[in-house]
Amino acid sequence: MKGKRAFRILFVDGPNLNVLGEREPSVYGRETLADIREAVTAAARTEGATVAFFQSNHEGEIVERLQAAKRRFDGVVINPAAYTHTSVAVRDALLYSGLPAIEVHLSNPASREGFRRVSLVEDVVVGRICGVGGYGYTLALLALLRHLRREGARGRA
Amino acid sequence: MKGKRAFRILFVDGPNLNVLGEREPSVYGRETLADIREAVTAAARTEGATVAFFQSNHEGEIVERLQAAKRRFDGVVINPAAYTHTSVAVRDALLYSGLPAIEVHLSNPASREGFRRVSLVEDVVVGRICGVGGYGYTLALLALLRHLRREGARGRA
Amino acid sequence: MKGKRAFRILFVDGPNLNVLGEREPSVYGRETLADIREAVTAAARTEGATVAFFQSNHEGEIVERLQAAKRRFDGVVINPAAYTHTSVAVRDALLYSGLPAIEVHLSNPASREGFRRVSLVEDVVVGRICGVGGYGYTLALLALLRHLRREGARGRA
Amino acid sequence: MKGKRAFRILFVDGPNLNVLGEREPSVYGRETLADIREAVTAAARTEGATVAFFQSNHEGEIVERLQAAKRRFDGVVINPAAYTHTSVAVRDALLYSGLPAIEVHLSNPASREGFRRVSLVEDVVVGRICGVGGYGYTLALLALLRHLRREGARGRA
Amino acid sequence: MKGKRAFRILFVDGPNLNVLGEREPSVYGRETLADIREAVTAAARTEGATVAFFQSNHEGEIVERLQAAKRRFDGVVINPAAYTHTSVAVRDALLYSGLPAIEVHLSNPASREGFRRVSLVEDVVVGRICGVGGYGYTLALLALLRHLRREGARGRA
Amino acid sequence: MKGKRAFRILFVDGPNLNVLGEREPSVYGRETLADIREAVTAAARTEGATVAFFQSNHEGEIVERLQAAKRRFDGVVINPAAYTHTSVAVRDALLYSGLPAIEVHLSNPASREGFRRVSLVEDVVVGRICGVGGYGYTLALLALLRHLRREGARGRA
Amino acid sequence: MKGKRAFRILFVDGPNLNVLGEREPSVYGRETLADIREAVTAAARTEGATVAFFQSNHEGEIVERLQAAKRRFDGVVINPAAYTHTSVAVRDALLYSGLPAIEVHLSNPASREGFRRVSLVEDVVVGRICGVGGYGYTLALLALLRHLRREGARGRA
Amino acid sequence: MKGKRAFRILFVDGPNLNVLGEREPSVYGRETLADIREAVTAAARTEGATVAFFQSNHEGEIVERLQAAKRRFDGVVINPAAYTHTSVAVRDALLYSGLPAIEVHLSNPASREGFRRVSLVEDVVVGRICGVGGYGYTLALLALLRHLRREGARGRA
Amino acid sequence: MKGKRAFRILFVDGPNLNVLGEREPSVYGRETLADIREAVTAAARTEGATVAFFQSNHEGEIVERLQAAKRRFDGVVINPAAYTHTSVAVRDALLYSGLPAIEVHLSNPASREGFRRVSLVEDVVVGRICGVGGYGYTLALLALLRHLRREGARGRA
Amino acid sequence: MKGKRAFRILFVDGPNLNVLGEREPSVYGRETLADIREAVTAAARTEGATVAFFQSNHEGEIVERLQAAKRRFDGVVINPAAYTHTSVAVRDALLYSGLPAIEVHLSNPASREGFRRVSLVEDVVVGRICGVGGYGYTLALLALLRHLRREGARGRA
Amino acid sequence: MKGKRAFRILFVDGPNLNVLGEREPSVYGRETLADIREAVTAAARTEGATVAFFQSNHEGEIVERLQAAKRRFDGVVINPAAYTHTSVAVRDALLYSGLPAIEVHLSNPASREGFRRVSLVEDVVVGRICGVGGYGYTLALLALLRHLRREGARGRA
Amino acid sequence: MKGKRAFRILFVDGPNLNVLGEREPSVYGRETLADIREAVTAAARTEGATVAFFQSNHEGEIVERLQAAKRRFDGVVINPAAYTHTSVAVRDALLYSGLPAIEVHLSNPASREGFRRVSLVEDVVVGRICGVGGYGYTLALLALLRHLRREGARGRA
Repeated sequence: MKGKRAFRILFVDGPNLNVLGEREPSVYGRETLADIREAVTAAARTEGATVAFFQSNHEGEIVERLQAAKRRFDGVVINPAAYTHTSVAVRDALLYSGLPAIEVHLSNPASREGFRRVSLVEDVVVGRICGVGGYGYTLALLALLRHLRREGARGRA
Repeated sequence: MKGKRAFRILFVDGPNLNVLGEREPSVYGRETLADIREAVTAAARTEGATVAFFQSNHEGEIVERLQAAKRRFDGVVINPAAYTHTSVAVRDALLYSGLPAIEVHLSNPASREGFRRVSLVEDVVVGRICGVGGYGYTLALLALLRHLRREGARGRA
Repeated sequence: MKGKRAFRILFVDGPNLNVLGEREPSVYGRETLADIREAVTAAARTEGATVAFFQSNHEGEIVERLQAAKRRFDGVVINPAAYTHTSVAVRDALLYSGLPAIEVHLSNPASREGFRRVSLVEDVVVGRICGVGGYGYTLALLALLRHLRREGARGRA
Repeated sequence: MKGKRAFRILFVDGPNLNVLGEREPSVYGRETLADIREAVTAAARTEGATVAFFQSNHEGEIVERLQAAKRRFDGVVINPAAYTHTSVAVRDALLYSGLPAIEVHLSNPASREGFRRVSLVEDVVVGRICGVGGYGYTLALLALLRHLRREGARGRA
Repeated sequence: MKGKRAFRILFVDGPNLNVLGEREPSVYGRETLADIREAVTAAARTEGATVAFFQSNHEGEIVERLQAAKRRFDGVVINPAAYTHTSVAVRDALLYSGLPAIEVHLSNPASREGFRRVSLVEDVVVGRICGVGGYGYTLALLALLRHLRREGARGRA
Repeated sequence: MKGKRAFRILFVDGPNLNVLGEREPSVYGRETLADIREAVTAAARTEGATVAFFQSNHEGEIVERLQAAKRRFDGVVINPAAYTHTSVAVRDALLYSGLPAIEVHLSNPASREGFRRVSLVEDVVVGRICGVGGYGYTLALLALLRHLRREGARGRA
Repeated sequence: MKGKRAFRILFVDGPNLNVLGEREPSVYGRETLADIREAVTAAARTEGATVAFFQSNHEGEIVERLQAAKRRFDGVVINPAAYTHTSVAVRDALLYSGLPAIEVHLSNPASREGFRRVSLVEDVVVGRICGVGGYGYTLALLALLRHLRREGARGRA
Repeated sequence: MKGKRAFRILFVDGPNLNVLGEREPSVYGRETLADIREAVTAAARTEGATVAFFQSNHEGEIVERLQAAKRRFDGVVINPAAYTHTSVAVRDALLYSGLPAIEVHLSNPASREGFRRVSLVEDVVVGRICGVGGYGYTLALLALLRHLRREGARGRA
Repeated sequence: MKGKRAFRILFVDGPNLNVLGEREPSVYGRETLADIREAVTAAARTEGATVAFFQSNHEGEIVERLQAAKRRFDGVVINPAAYTHTSVAVRDALLYSGLPAIEVHLSNPASREGFRRVSLVEDVVVGRICGVGGYGYTLALLALLRHLRREGARGRA
Repeated sequence: MKGKRAFRILFVDGPNLNVLGEREPSVYGRETLADIREAVTAAARTEGATVAFFQSNHEGEIVERLQAAKRRFDGVVINPAAYTHTSVAVRDALLYSGLPAIEVHLSNPASREGFRRVSLVEDVVVGRICGVGGYGYTLALLALLRHLRREGARGRA
Repeated sequence: MKGKRAFRILFVDGPNLNVLGEREPSVYGRETLADIREAVTAAARTEGATVAFFQSNHEGEIVERLQAAKRRFDGVVINPAAYTHTSVAVRDALLYSGLPAIEVHLSNPASREGFRRVSLVEDVVVGRICGVGGYGYTLALLALLRHLRREGARGRA
Repeated sequence: MKGKRAFRILFVDGPNLNVLGEREPSVYGRETLADIREAVTAAARTEGATVAFFQSNHEGEIVERLQAAKRRFDGVVINPAAYTHTSVAVRDALLYSGLPAIEVHLSNPASREGFRRVSLVEDVVVGRICGVGGYGYTLALLALLRHLRREGARGRA
């Protein structure tokens, strides 16, 4: 992997994020997924990275998107939403992809229902960013690029 | 919301209810989903309500049907079947819809396997009706209409 | 058991339901037990059923009322209130009576304190109706009559 | 306490034992409480002991009967039935009485529902006899008399 | 509520407290309930408050006494004894009464059997006083009056 | 099985019961296994039953003794001692034998260490007798004979 | 069912098994699903059985394939993969199909993450084969045919 | 210990109590630690007792203050605040001091976060007073003096 | 290890398997251990493998047989029966032997008592085969030979 | 609060972070706390924010630093390190400060020992950033500033 | 007991310790039981104590060796190995012997499988020494002799 | 590391050990920390080792002492006392130091309160010595020196 080339990052969003902005605004705010993607794209441009976006309400589609990401992307930013707590299949697909990932949550799961405290991917991702709204996606991009550059530097050494 | 207009109720059924009547008859009886819908439609006509029906074995489709129900329906009667116990996504979609809901189960989950005691929607619905077979859907319709009329009355006050 | 004869249904209410309407109105509403009984009586008349009512704050009295119901009634609608969660004696008396029962709760226990999630009768009743207020008693009557007619039909077959 | 005098034993029965013989015969058999008492009385006569019987469905009455037993009886045979699992008050009254007790159960609680595995008196009684039907009362009488004679012998030593 | 008028406080005692002084003196001491009431009455006189006392071994009677206290008393000092750990009905009646309450225990439940660590009223009372014997009732009276005066002061502000 | 013939009862004792009388006398008393067997033999003679005794500290030997008991005995009185809490093999052998059994314990396990509350045979025996010392074996014999006579009577009916 | 006719067996594979051979080779080896199917087909030919294969990453599709298998197949070999641990819907569909099933896992779940120890189908299948890689499918075929022949033999008897 | 001499009581306060009055006033009120100490001092004067006060945010300092209290004080009133739930060291120091203690909490821990239900000192103190605000310190002083006088009286007897 | 030489496989059976065929036939069928061994021997001959058999009801003997197997066998097929759930010693001996093993169970432990769900060897064996009766031993032989050939092949590479 | 003025952010680090870079480099990397602070200072300059740093191994000192931060800072970035899992006092001090906070962890606690999964502050912070090394502090600064600007904007609206 | 006489110490080793040195050397090292005994014997000679050694893989034999040790030895050093976690019988035999004991483990159970954290003898021994290999037996001898001398000294005082 | 040079060992003692000898003598005996240190110093002289001692009641000070020990000592003997059960910070500092450690406890935690069963350092130390009083420190010294010599020998090999 060369340090100079543009890293390709896939953003994966789970169920009900397609209606973000309308859903429980007291918890999630009024920002839409389009707003978030626009901000991420701008940051990626600044950082010289390529980004692609995928949202689905179907567990199987997310699994297949992660399978297809193998060797086509350098890393994943994932907000599995409800599937965070219930999908072993998404975890397995993420492991299959072999890609470093950052897990993002718009709100802070620790302030919500007990079952949201369990994440089935938290121990297979590089890091987690929670509770800072849509801006968390941009921070996740920065974190992932930093991670990739450092790993790249190690690889060259 | 006006008291006089017809309330629109969406009936949502989860996995394996499409084969009702053939599935474990000792538990679920021989009544089919078509039989139940017929009885519900008759009761809705009497009550002056409009009903629509949706069944799917796919978690993602149920999520999307509930998302689409927002502002198009006044309430939901839902039998999430197996997804009762495993789907946070259906719970989140129900919350997103903002609609009052009644949860229905044909059999009494308390008399069955331990994992059926957990319902991921039970604390976000208005009420629950369990163990009275297909007739439970008709009772749920009545309960939901009563709830909507009372809320409507409060709204006008 | 003949299909044509009037079914006799006993309604049993547990502790603090005598003061319904005054107790935590934000949870239970302003309807009194008398209001509920009036609505139930009207529905029973329509359905051609006979109803009797019993409320007590004493566990032992409820036990004895259920014992006495054996062979004098065809079914029971029971809201054990606080005894739902703490009385094995009421469960045992219900089993002794041998009568089919529907359990009713005015509010939805799943939205309340953790200890209200445990019901000591839920696995020995035919069905449960929760969260639809006093109207739940009328629905329970309908559910129980439906159950009895079906069982009666089976008996004649 | 003199070895020669007749020991006075109180038999206390909890809720639903008044209808024994009619209640779930597959679990409890067809023997009635009167049958059991007759057999116990015969055995007591043989052993030269005095017996008294008390049954109540009311927790408070059992508490008061045990309070009153202090200094009027030498020991207690108790089948708390449903209160075995739910009454701290009966336990406290038994402790108050200061009397040695044998706990009896007609059936074997270990073969039944999980909540019947908890006994709130089992660690404050001398011994327990379960699963041998009404004959368990007679055995309990024998066990208690043996215990009292041995204690009496120690007292005189 | 006027600051100057005498506050009316109801003292409610649960099962086996009628035999206090004779019951497990190593745990509860030799003081009787009559001794405690005398001391409380003296303190109430000093404070210008009115007190009434009620003890019962019957859960249902305690429930009904608390129901009746609504609007006739300004606060409750309650030692539910064994019912602390087993009665949801007493909790519900206390909530129904709407009265501020102080929970008292003669001994310190934390030094006793594990099941005494659970209190079904501890989260609906204003405060708790444990382990200081019968004197705890007098302290509870002082605490409750202080609470009522402060609330009264707020009400007038 | 004929009512008149002598029932053959096997008594099986688990580890450390060979040293009874010397072991923790504050818990188990000074009675030896020989004393107990003498009393049991006398009672068996009175009842017209045949008894055999077996004690072993080896789990495998107890398993094999129970296997061999099949068809050679009519019932088993077993005190598995330490193996009560740890041996599935003894449970399986007891099930293999197909014989009705009474479980005996000299002391009351409920008053001792937490791990003694678990019995791996308690749900496959007919009944249990605990806490009445060596006399419990004689009572177990009586209970088992009563059970066999009743079953025999049913068999002839 | 005739002993001579060819049994029809459906093989169902859950999520991420389509990428087998590339996924975590240290856990799952380099064998692909195509390799496994080839071996199974050869074994089926030898045994005179008919086989069909289905893989999906979508819970709903697996549910529907199992529904459709009813009366068209004689048995199922299923590796639910991630859905083993999270899908009640697959369990319900398997029950609906009424077909005997063998559950297969390539690796040994007991040596992996804790959440893989829970199987939602393990108690409704005939048997389980784990940890012997792709060869487990062939063994499962053999096991299922043996089971069907024996049941068939019983049926004819 | 002489009944007539002034008892010396040490008041120990744990972390964040130095900022009382400013901290979460909805939970703790506006009263400061200085206000509380003033009231306690006045009460002590009335009772003829000597009081000393100590507050620290450092676990080690509280440990050392309690060590030093041995033989210099007659009793301790302690509000360990956050250390209630996390400090075995404070518990050990309290045991070392050998002094009778009353545990005080301003608010009622039972109405707050789950982790506040655990107290590491509750079973080594004489008694506990919770939920009556700063006035609880004065009540604790009274309770402790009563305890000391009674123990003193016993000592002289 | 050479691919051509005959692999030597030890079959170890735990307690009560010596009486297989007579024990709970509804669970285990009528096949005896001799029947199973005959079938295994035939299959071993076909596969060119050597087999030896050992059954014991004594935990210590099984431990010692496994110790002795080290370097004398190439693999183990083990059905620890009751010791599956209770013997750490068998697990330790299996680890000591250093031999690859397949765990077999005649019935499916997941359909039986809760305590049968725990296996103390399941995470140290290569694989597990459950619920396919005595035929499972033959399948285990096949699985183990396949495993040994593959490992042998790796060793030569 | 004015949007234009420089926000003041306090960085608080818990025990053992003073030796970062030397401690378990495989977990935490070779970056020192000084390196991190340098990067944070640079980022703060770019963002026009003021930063201050505090590290302590003493729970009490961290408590007091947070108390003192009230009204002197606009927000806190905190890595409580070991105190994350054990300090209620730090949680209480953070609540007292009334400041919005971001919790940072260098490594991902979800991939480590079980006790690191519990955070006593996670539900009282705005958000959390884990697993992205020292760079997480810079991201936390950005997240906190974004949060403050948004809150400021709301305040002005 | 005289201080001058030689104390007699029995060393008891549980299952699989006969093959020490060959078993999992990465966990247990290459030292054999003979090596350990040689070192212990040398140390005993220095200390003027008598030692005897016993190892068995049979639970029952260990039980009987401990029974026989009563009055023939002054103390026991025991490494129950696998029986540490599963044998109540060994615990009971140790209690029967009435001898002070030191429990030894070669490795540190806390760094191994979860089930090794439970010791059924740890609360009935004087002390425990873990993780210092075979040398732990010598240290245990020293510790036990010190204990015996101190107790002896107390006895003479 | 050279075999001939004197190993330097740091002894670290946690809270309340400064008052040893006065604290709960029934649990800890009358030996003081000075007594223990004297014995340890004598043993160290015999063994040719250098020892240093540190005691603190402050978690932060123990953390800093352990940090400073890195590269200045060859090993640690630690009795964290109360911090055994509550301090992750001490664990982290011990890991930071990279030094082999022996954990010592004067009494046997397994015979005391349940919360003393949890040790936060037990899985990061080499070994543990409990229940042999102050003499355990000397044994720990011997164990640690033996460990260091063996490691040293390995290092030279």
